[in-house]
Parts: sequence; C-alpha cells; structure tokens
Amino acid sequence: MAVARRTSRDIRSDSRLIVVRALLAAGESTRAALAEDTGLSPATVSAVVGDLLGSGVAAEAGLLSGTVGRPTTGLRLNPDRGRVVGVYVEDRHFQATVFDAALRRLANVHVTAPAPVEAADDVIDRIARTLDTALAEAGASHEDVLGVGVLLPGGMQRPVKSALAPDAIWLHLDRLRDRLGLPVVVDNPLKAIAAAELWLGAGRRCASVVVANLGEGVGAGIVQDGAVVRGATGTAGEWGHSLLVFDGRACQCGRRGCAEAYVGVPGIRRTLAETAPGHPLLDVPLPGFAAALAAAAESGDPAAASAVERTAHYLGAALADLVAIVNPEVIALTGWAAAELGALVLPVAERRVRDDAPGDAAASLVIEPSHSSGMEGIAAIALERFMRDAGLVTTRVLPAL
Amino acid sequence: MAVARRTSRDIRSDSRLIVVRALLAAGESTRAALAEDTGLSPATVSAVVGDLLGSGVAAEAGLLSGTVGRPTTGLRLNPDRGRVVGVYVEDRHFQATVFDAALRRLANVHVTAPAPVEAADDVIDRIARTLDTALAEAGASHEDVLGVGVLLPGGMQRPVKSALAPDAIWLHLDRLRDRLGLPVVVDNPLKAIAAAELWLGAGRRCASVVVANLGEGVGAGIVQDGAVVRGATGTAGEWGHSLLVFDGRACQCGRRGCAEAYVGVPGIRRTLAETAPGHPLLDVPLPGFAAALAAAAESGDPAAASAVERTAHYLGAALADLVAIVNPEVIALTGWAAAELGALVLPVAERRVRDDAPGDAAASLVIEPSHSSGMEGIAAIALERFMRDAGLVTTRVLPAL
Ligand SMILES: [Zn+2]
Ligand SMILES: [Zn+2]
Repeated sequence: MAVARRTSRDIRSDSRLIVVRALLAAGESTRAALAEDTGLSPATVSAVVGDLLGSGVAAEAGLLSGTVGRPTTGLRLNPDRGRVVGVYVEDRHFQATVFDAALRRLANVHVTAPAPVEAADDVIDRIARTLDTALAEAGASHEDVLGVGVLLPGGMQRPVKSALAPDAIWLHLDRLRDRLGLPVVVDNPLKAIAAAELWLGAGRRCASVVVANLGEGVGAGIVQDGAVVRGATGTAGEWGHSLLVFDGRACQCGRRGCAEAYVGVPGIRRTLAETAPGHPLLDVPLPGFAAALAAAAESGDPAAASAVERTAHYLGAALADLVAIVNPEVIALTGWAAAELGALVLPVAERRVRDDAPGDAAASLVIEPSHSSGMEGIAAIALERFMRDAGLVTTRVLPAL
Repeated sequence: MAVARRTSRDIRSDSRLIVVRALLAAGESTRAALAEDTGLSPATVSAVVGDLLGSGVAAEAGLLSGTVGRPTTGLRLNPDRGRVVGVYVEDRHFQATVFDAALRRLANVHVTAPAPVEAADDVIDRIARTLDTALAEAGASHEDVLGVGVLLPGGMQRPVKSALAPDAIWLHLDRLRDRLGLPVVVDNPLKAIAAAELWLGAGRRCASVVVANLGEGVGAGIVQDGAVVRGATGTAGEWGHSLLVFDGRACQCGRRGCAEAYVGVPGIRRTLAETAPGHPLLDVPLPGFAAALAAAAESGDPAAASAVERTAHYLGAALADLVAIVNPEVIALTGWAAAELGALVLPVAERRVRDDAPGDAAASLVIEPSHSSGMEGIAAIALERFMRDAGLVTTRVLPAL
C-alpha cells in the first residue's frame, strides 16, 4: 500500500477495469460504444477487449445491427466464464449467493443456525456447507468457482472483539481457504457496499461517493476516483468511531463520544433512556427497536418524538463531518436510515447537514438511500480478485489475503 | 469533477506527471533510471520523455557515463523553459517567489503594507507590483512566466467572510488575471502544502498523506493515490470544521463545537480563559500567544500547563478522527504544532491519537512536522496548470479558475 507510484501495469489495469465495468453496466455493447462510454481511445478499447476475450472474461455476443452501416460484433461479459460466490456470516446467519461471471444472481441460500456458532471450526464448516448448498442450487460445481467473497463484520486489522466465531474467523482465514479449496477474499460489509456503489451504483456517475451505514454498528465506505478508499491499514471509513462528543458516551470500541454511540441503534435507545427513563420502548430488543421507535413517534409519543429529533441532529452533525473532510457528491445511506426510522429522521438530519457543513460543501450534495447490496459488492471484489490472479488487473483489493 | 471515468488522455497524463515528478526528485536521470524509479515500461518512458522534450518541459543534460557500458543521455527538467511565480496574500502581507521551471527558488520579495489593504483594486495592484519586483530580482520578464499561483486563505466555494480584501479577491479573480495578463491559478494554502507533500515530500513515498495545519485557523490537505483530494466542491479537508464537541463552543464558521474552536490559537486561549479567567497570558495578542503559552507552561505556570494538557487531548482526539476516516500513513503537521507549542503538546496528543484511533488504524501511522512550503506547492500547481494548458496533462487542478 505504501507506494504512491503508478506503473504501466496499473495503467493497463485501469483500462481493463473501466471496460469491464462499462460492459457490466451496458449488458451488451460494441467496441465503438465502449470507446464512447469510457472515453478511452478506440485503440485502447480494442487492445483491452482483445485481452478480455483472450481470458474469457468477455465474449462476443453475435452480430448487432447498428442504426447505420453494417452490423458490428456485440460484446458482453461472459457469464459462463465461471461462478462467483458471495458469503455472509454474522451471528447465527450463514448466507451464500451464487453469481455468474456477469454478476447476475443465480441462487441464494440462507441458513439460520439454531444456536450461536462459537467454535471457528464450526463456523468454517457451516460456511462450506452453505456454499455447497448454494452451488448445488445453481447447478454449479466447485470447479466452476472463480472466487469466493466473504462478508465479515469487523476488519483484518481491527482487534477481534471476542475469541468467539464468527468474528474470530478473521484469525482463521488460512483454514477457511484450505477447507474450501477455492480462492477466498474477505472484506467488511461496508467496503463491499462501497464496491457495489462503485461498480453498479452512484459511483458510475460520481467521482466521490460515501456509503454511510446505520445499524447497531455505524460506519462508512468511501469511493474516490474509481476505487474504494482503504487507507494505510485497510480501515479508512471508520466514521462511526469519529468523535461526536468529546469525552461523551462510552463506545463499544473503547473510545468515548464516538458517533456510533449516538446514532447506532443502541445509542438511539440510550438517547431515549436519558430523556425518558423507564419508557416501555426500552424493553424492545435491538433488532426491532428502530421500527418500534418510529411507530411510537408517529403515533404521538412525545418521548419517542424527542429521541427521534435528537437522533436527527446527532446524525446530521455526524454526516456534516464526512462532508467537511471528504466532501462527497453523494452520501448513500444503508441500515435504519434507509428503512424504518429514515423517513422521520432524514428531513431534520439533512437540514442539519446543510447548516453544519462548511461553506458551500453541501451545496450540491445528494443524500439518498443506497440500493447497493453487500453481496453484489463482495462478488464484484471476488471477480476483481480473480482478474488480478489472471494477470488482468493490479487491484489493491485486500493485498494481505 | 462529476465523472469518475478515466480516459486515455488521463492515463497519458498520469504517466507524464509521474515522469515529471521523478525528474524533479532525481534532479538528473536517464530513461532507464526513470523506468526503474517509476515502474513505467521503458516504452512508456521513452514516449513520455519524447513528449516532455518536445514541449521543452524536459531537456537533455549531456552525456552521463554510467558505471557500466557506454554513456547515456542525461535528462532533467528544463529550468529555462520559463518561470513560475508563487504569490502569498494575507492581511497586510504580500509575498512573491519566483521559481525556475525545475521548481528551484530564484528570488523572493515580501512587502508588508503600512495599513490594512481593503479595496480589491488595491490588493490587485499590490499583487502586481510585488510580482513585478520579484521578477526583476530574478532577472525575468513577464514573457518568461508560465504561470502564477496565488495562495489565498479561504476557498472558492467558501463564503467570503467580509467584503474586504484580500479575502474578497476570490470574487475578483477575473480582474486579477486581466491585470497581470498571465495565467493565474488560485488555491488555498493547505491544498498547496498538500501538493508540495505530493510533489516533493511524504507523498513521494506514501500513497496517503494528510497535512494538518494548526494556526488561527485549522484545516487539512489530503493526498491520496497521487492526487490532492478536492471533493465535490473543492473543499475536502475542512477538518477544522469537523466536530469535536456536539453543540460546543461557537466557531467562526457559524457551527458549534468545531475542532478549530479548540485547537486553533484563539480556541487554545479560550481553553486557558475557561480554567484561569483573568490570567495575564490572555492579554497576549494571538500571533504571540502560542509561544507565550509554551514558555509559561515550561516555566511551571500551572494554568498554562493545564491549558497545554487539555489542548493536547483536544488535538489528539481531533487527529484521531482523521485517522478513523482517512486512515493515512503520514500526518504532516504545520502551524503551531510544528513550532512553539508542538514540543509540549505532541507527545500527549500522539498518545491520545493512538488510544482513540479505531483498532490498529494508527499502528503504522507517522506523525511528523511538514517540511513542505505552500509556496513550493502553489508553484507546482501552477506548473501542472501550465502542462495542462500545453496539452500534456489532464489535471483536475482548480477546473473553475
Ligand atoms: Zn467508537
Ligand atoms: Zn467551524
């Protein structure tokens, strides 16, 4: 990560990624249309298309009759180049989604374990079985798999909170790789959603996009100039653990006053507890809390409405910090802001962002729900990783894994 | 700014900038050494060197005898391609520095006006005269000037705080350009220092560098993957106006609780005033305050020592936010942290950064004084702008100016 210089290989790599993404967006295209879409020269497009055809990543799609002149050869990503599998692991949930090599979803399997799965071996075992089931559903075999992308909360360099799985899988990646016998890439869900925005979402039209996730945990994924920002230790985007209140509430990360301690779901519950101790909503378990709070606020419960209002100001202020430092064109929201509570919180939060952001930094900012999925993102990352292993790109995707 | 796609021109541009920066760093080099230094292919280096020789940006430097084999032709930036002038304007100060086209300093003139210069016409007039004096000192004429870079506090998109110059010059750039009759680029000092880090400093060895300035104002300049991050409206890096204390002290930007209101010099004075109202140091004017506070703390004044200690914690927490969000390899400090107060504040601040940063984000972080100058940075930006106008690069330097 430490070298700023870009080499000829990086430059060829950029062109190839640009063309792959353009093909993905277009579904079917031509060399001329790709040159038009990407701004690359016709000669570069021809060379890149040759490389992609040669490696089977792209395929010819038969003759397309243009509006004028003779028909030209159509191009598309080659769905049959192989399969890419996204795996999601959290708590008792094990999910595997099989994609073709044009990133179209073929099959999905979601297994909920009856009890928490604690031993790393058990987690690895369940991942392997969920993946096998999904491959069977998709009519695919192990030999078809170009890569597996595993979405794991937390991160490589973050201290694992407990010795219990699935968090601890970060410590056992070699065993996971050995057990699966497949190329494995692991990333945290927010980096994956950011990758999905880059490949398939707002990143297609904007140079600078921030995905902000509001759940029990809070974090951001940053896309800048055609790449997901990773930073020196792979942890860029830890917005949830940037400061909202100096020496404020204790955060689960150990710091005091982090944004997550105010706009994460447990933090919202704490806001309610501060103003209305003993409120019956405080007994609602976390997974249902945001929706219950929204319902109560809408039905006129003043304590709920006040907690919603305070949360909106906390969120707006925290988003304004992202605007101050990163100054993105788009903030794409996932988690509770995009669901239950969003409709109540966002109008006030957005006003606060615009009030708090320095100068005109938020003048053209768009705040919108993210339509991107972490599964698609991790599949895109796994595909990029496959292209790296095939010598097509020099990606900086998780060099350590 | 809104288009993420990179074109063939961008890619050629990257190669040219890479070679120019390598020549700048090396002083004198060869095609083979440039390929070695940059990782570009020998063919790319040859093509780029041809372009640079053709436009006069580079020149042959005579034969160099290598350690083995026949002598090869040396290459260097061509200092005589022209002159680049950096101009600094703030309050009563007007400074102009003339560089050759290899960014070597030829002459510097610093004029302090006897009274505040308020009318835009007067400011423009003083800029023109200071520039002319500096050119005369350097034995250069207007015809030699490839570009002028003006360092102005504030920014294009930030509201001008008063109708008074020099801040208001942002509103009168056309008149400045007309009056000088030269290509003019304007940037704020932190973006310029970041450019200097990128061209000549830590950015040469690291992909991700943040320059953090601590003066009366507070801000950051972010270098990522070979470019200064500008953001959607050119205001990325407004770290000074990110939150330290939700609804805390009033900041001059209008928001409450910004980092600047605590770690800017007026904020430090306010910290002292809070714990020691009536303290004699509170009468020291701002420009000397940081040094006076450092001296008092070192001579055992407990109130001064306490203000230093609190400032260190504020600074550490604020820097930890930069680490959380950007996760840089290096934070390069300018302003008071690099001068008077730094020795007292930094050890505690650095410990706080490492405590507060999420997970291992600060594990390999280097915090160091910046040795880069805004004048060199604005000269580099002006040179880059010249190369853009010459069709050599597709820079995103200040597209609006
Ligand atoms: Zn935290
Ligand atoms: Zn402020």
